[in-house]
Amino acid sequence: MSKPSTLASLVVDAIQSVVGSSAVLHEPRFNGNEWKYLKECLDSTFVSSVGKFVDRFESDLAAYTGAKHVVAVVNGTSALHVALQMAGVKPDDEVLIPALTFVATANAVNYCGAIPHFVDSEERTLGIGPQALREYLQDVTETRNGQCVNKATGRVIRALVPMHTFGHPVDIEGVMAVTRDFHLALVEDAAESLGSTYQGHHMGTFGLVGALSFNGNKIITTGGGGAIITNDPVLAKRAKHLTTTAKIPHGWDYVHDKVGYNYRLPNINAALGCAQLEQLVGILEAKRRLFERYQDSFSKISQVSIMVEPVGCMSNYWLQTLVLDDFSADQKNAVLTATNDAGLMTRPAWMLMHRLEPYLKCPKMELPVAESLEQRLINLPSSDYLL
Amino acid sequence: MSKPSTLASLVVDAIQSVVGSSAVLHEPRFNGNEWKYLKECLDSTFVSSVGKFVDRFESDLAAYTGAKHVVAVVNGTSALHVALQMAGVKPDDEVLIPALTFVATANAVNYCGAIPHFVDSEERTLGIGPQALREYLQDVTETRNGQCVNKATGRVIRALVPMHTFGHPVDIEGVMAVTRDFHLALVEDAAESLGSTYQGHHMGTFGLVGALSFNGNKIITTGGGGAIITNDPVLAKRAKHLTTTAKIPHGWDYVHDKVGYNYRLPNINAALGCAQLEQLVGILEAKRRLFERYQDSFSKISQVSIMVEPVGCMSNYWLQTLVLDDFSADQKNAVLTATNDAGLMTRPAWMLMHRLEPYLKCPKMELPVAESLEQRLINLPSSDYLL
Repeated sequence: MSKPSTLASLVVDAIQSVVGSSAVLHEPRFNGNEWKYLKECLDSTFVSSVGKFVDRFESDLAAYTGAKHVVAVVNGTSALHVALQMAGVKPDDEVLIPALTFVATANAVNYCGAIPHFVDSEERTLGIGPQALREYLQDVTETRNGQCVNKATGRVIRALVPMHTFGHPVDIEGVMAVTRDFHLALVEDAAESLGSTYQGHHMGTFGLVGALSFNGNKIITTGGGGAIITNDPVLAKRAKHLTTTAKIPHGWDYVHDKVGYNYRLPNINAALGCAQLEQLVGILEAKRRLFERYQDSFSKISQVSIMVEPVGCMSNYWLQTLVLDDFSADQKNAVLTATNDAGLMTRPAWMLMHRLEPYLKCPKMELPVAESLEQRLINLPSSDYLL
Repeated sequence: MSKPSTLASLVVDAIQSVVGSSAVLHEPRFNGNEWKYLKECLDSTFVSSVGKFVDRFESDLAAYTGAKHVVAVVNGTSALHVALQMAGVKPDDEVLIPALTFVATANAVNYCGAIPHFVDSEERTLGIGPQALREYLQDVTETRNGQCVNKATGRVIRALVPMHTFGHPVDIEGVMAVTRDFHLALVEDAAESLGSTYQGHHMGTFGLVGALSFNGNKIITTGGGGAIITNDPVLAKRAKHLTTTAKIPHGWDYVHDKVGYNYRLPNINAALGCAQLEQLVGILEAKRRLFERYQDSFSKISQVSIMVEPVGCMSNYWLQTLVLDDFSADQKNAVLTATNDAGLMTRPAWMLMHRLEPYLKCPKMELPVAESLEQRLINLPSSDYLL
């Protein structure tokens, strides 16, 4: 008599039926002008922080996202660090961020000398749930001098940073209403959501400022890279200044008027980015097809579902995500082990921020949805070339 | 009757006799395996923070410098930021750094929440003068619990950061004696001194930890890049951990036990670095020849001299440096204007740190030599291909 199929073995079969016998989690392909642009970059000798590909990458990103201004930087973390400063985040402020996010969101707040304040997610988007957040802020904050103050800590809550998890847009209209009503700056962590839109508008363009990432595991890559996007020309100018060591332009003098950063994206990485961005539309189509195949393949397993873009949104489907139902959460580790043992790279969501050593003592709301999702989300092999 | 020659016009003539009619300040050339390694890197699809070129660049740098451990990072500023943390620099500490340096040295101290404390240079090396520093520290500090305390501010002075200006090694033995006698950690800012040695030992290897830079204007470049070098395996491990988001190694879990940084050098930049490093010996020879030609050309102008490597040292001659004598300091701007107008890119030393807006209130010793040098140093066109 054959052993009854476990959920783990069913998941292995379902993934294999889509991607074949083995697959990594996410990997880029360089099938466009990468090679040509890198050569042009080397031949120009401008490989560093000044050069035509940096300028072009910025204007290409502006054209693609619809943001009026783009400042290219060394990675998504640095983009977020500077974006928070643009939004006025100062030492001893609090900043609302999701508990369910990559650690860079919390670290960027920390780099500003500010304190992350953790917010719950909603199941529908995996991101910040505006209704629960609104009720929480009504309870724990009050307005003083036009600022949102945490009554328990006495600190100003300066900003709210939604993150579009695995490429799925949050309920950005709901989030914007919260930021308006509670006097919070809106900074979008759009590191995972290049190519994702809400009602046709690109993520990262709803807030005061947004941060993109082009790390090696992202939907397009520059090796390492990121960008600050904004519609505000004054903020854009300030971001450019801060990311280029706050040097005052001059033919030869070296005068810096602020504590700046060496965050400018090198031209050679931007060259890669220009070539990758040219292929983004095709990558998005391939990722959507992969989503459809996974959805079909997993429709036969009743305990799980594949994460679907929220209504009114287009997700870039950066990482395909399996959602276990409440009764199967205890199977998560078995599924992770079986899939990885089978050569199918999968991974769980990040450990929630409030349980990481450096952030144990930070303020937080109740996090029932994030804590449940943490036990039930598994990212599947998601490279665009898999189909 | 012809106009009498000004110092400025004499300098223009002397530079032109060496480099021809026009030249930028410093520019890389990619005449080695840059192309091949970049292609290998793209073909491997590992362009980001994991890959064989990062590992190889680190071991090649270790072999070249003699440092036991190397951690490659996104730039020299980030290398210095983490190096200071390795040395135990904490918020509210003071850190002794030269007033005559690039702003990154001061910024890295600031990123740690610490306060730069500015030190004078000596004419012979352009770097920290240990004798004057020793006398100053005897006056203004006292030892409490084995730590050096600034009597005026009550703050611990944790570390001393000599910078090897334009590639010229400081009196590192004198500096080491000061750090021993005053209980200071020694962190070397070797951003400008790849290829420079003191008594045969590479700069950056004398202290607890050193920082290198491979920015586009440096002696070799990775686009943007840097490295932390140390002989201490525990510090090296900690540096690697902090620069890779302090993630605890695991097959799939995302757990971070510290506030880490996204500072890892991308593989694609490391590929460029491996090819560049192969050519360093030739570059150093070319730079030495360029120095000799400048020295010869300027020997005819009595008011100026070309900066010579200190006795017992080999300088990489990264930036060739014209030193005006005391009586000609008032000609500096005329020389800068005439040379740049003639298409010969030159620049002065950086504005001293204690006069930059963000560092106006920092503690400092008397800075007569640095203030004099600031008025008398001019960097000349220095690309290695000029001869």
